[in-house]
Amino acid sequence: MPLSTGGCPFCEGNEGDTPHEIISYRDPDSQKQQPGWRVRVVPNKFPALQIEGELQKRGDGIYDRMNGVGAHEVIIECPHHEVSMARLPEQNIREILWIYRDRLVDLKKDPRLIYGMIFKNVGGAAGASLEHSHSQLIVTPIVPINVLEEMNGAHEFYRYRGRCIYCDILDQEIAAQKRIVLESQNFLVIAPYASRFPYETWILPKEHNSHYENASKNELDELAGVLKKTLWKHEVALEQPAYNYMIHTGPLNSPYLPHYHWHIEIIPRLTRVAGFEWGTGFYINPVPPEQAAITLKNTPDGPG
Amino acid sequence: MPLSTGGCPFCEGNEGDTPHEIISYRDPDSQKQQPGWRVRVVPNKFPALQIEGELQKRGDGIYDRMNGVGAHEVIIECPHHEVSMARLPEQNIREILWIYRDRLVDLKKDPRLIYGMIFKNVGGAAGASLEHSHSQLIVTPIVPINVLEEMNGAHEFYRYRGRCIYCDILDQEIAAQKRIVLESQNFLVIAPYASRFPYETWILPKEHNSHYENASKNELDELAGVLKKTLWKHEVALEQPAYNYMIHTGPLNSPYLPHYHWHIEIIPRLTRVAGFEWGTGFYINPVPPEQAAITLKNTPDGPG
Repeated sequence: MPLSTGGCPFCEGNEGDTPHEIISYRDPDSQKQQPGWRVRVVPNKFPALQIEGELQKRGDGIYDRMNGVGAHEVIIECPHHEVSMARLPEQNIREILWIYRDRLVDLKKDPRLIYGMIFKNVGGAAGASLEHSHSQLIVTPIVPINVLEEMNGAHEFYRYRGRCIYCDILDQEIAAQKRIVLESQNFLVIAPYASRFPYETWILPKEHNSHYENASKNELDELAGVLKKTLWKHEVALEQPAYNYMIHTGPLNSPYLPHYHWHIEIIPRLTRVAGFEWGTGFYINPVPPEQAAITLKNTPDGPG
Repeated sequence: MPLSTGGCPFCEGNEGDTPHEIISYRDPDSQKQQPGWRVRVVPNKFPALQIEGELQKRGDGIYDRMNGVGAHEVIIECPHHEVSMARLPEQNIREILWIYRDRLVDLKKDPRLIYGMIFKNVGGAAGASLEHSHSQLIVTPIVPINVLEEMNGAHEFYRYRGRCIYCDILDQEIAAQKRIVLESQNFLVIAPYASRFPYETWILPKEHNSHYENASKNELDELAGVLKKTLWKHEVALEQPAYNYMIHTGPLNSPYLPHYHWHIEIIPRLTRVAGFEWGTGFYINPVPPEQAAITLKNTPDGPG
């Protein structure tokens, strides 16, 4: 385990170096902003969006403007200076997944907040600036364009076929057995068909559900082990890659959606996005997902 | 000027290290695949798409497949080992812009080829693997998703307002004078409103035209100077940044479009795309375009 150099603002004992905590899971006899926590959420010190003020949507000639109202939080995943989520105990990862849920549920109370994007940047090539294991939550006042397009595509499929496209993907992948990285009772981990990136990996709950925060206790508890195994396989097979993961889930203000299916997308950052990708939106992937799945499947799961 | 180490396959004298040239502008008494050229186009030695075969669109359960039919060419921009396009003589850049046009026009003859994306990757962070100044052309058998969305958005605007949205942007930017990097008789160079990336820069022809290959001789000749000045400003202000540029233009098989407007997008690669951007499609840009435009405008143009 890498040792903190002492200057890490996320390490236990340095609580004063972060803004005042929003929520933490901690020993009952410990105090907020003090040691004794296991998982801790704080506002980002350099937020992309801020909670104060009104949206004030307005025109600027042909352009549209609005204020950067929202939230930007950091989920500090462990008190000690661990840089790899895959090396955290499964029970620790459960609490991370539970605190994600608690934050999303809490943010629903503010009607200005429409979407909560939970993501993780690991390594410089993935945009991380601090190595202590953490993830982030950015809450936007509109549905993000990528989420909107994904939801619209899924909705179109649903209107035409009467089925969720992700449920269809689950069925086809289980039948084909060609792109499965691992399977548990409630989750399927796949290298998705025609993946954009080498070793891109998705974690899908088998039971249809549009919102991460509505996952059952059994599902979230099981997901901790699935996520840990998947990240461990990436670490071993790809030799500690820089990576991002993102939770794709329904908007904060939407009810249960029969056409949308929450999932986690993991992108190891092994290739550079270049002019062709920026211009076209098409991605050149030198590793077919069928090959990536075999490699990852055959990589050991790691310690429990 | 950096000297070639002798191993550069793009340097004059090493023509045998590249596949057989498709077109070149060269001295009348020189031979193909021999020295004596000024600008030269060859097939990419490691092509993303290949010209042989049929598309064979077919289903694979709920997924769609097709073969990688298309073309992947490299435009070698100068015979000597120059790494910076901004340092090439204006006359040299004119010939690069002309050879882009010649290639697009030639490829229209093959009905399987639908879209020609011309782009440039400079520097490792932008995905370049060779430093000798070059650009690339990838021709796809379908309209790329990003181009399709851009064209659909422009078409929707046109149907509603009866005007090209890029023509409206030109009018508004010239009136506002807040995001202009430089202006010539036929072109406007701007840091676009709400840019995704720090110092993102667009070059727009003032006169409406959907297709790059239909630009007039006067326009292409003038564009050489505009592109050289713009890239020089980037080099000086941003200290030789890695960057991509892409030519956004109409599909090879489409007629003149009243709603689409060709242009060049230049993206210096100064920030990392991270989990938030991948998940949302929204971009956090720490440098407002109004500030980027002032910085670039006040940076000298460089030698002629």
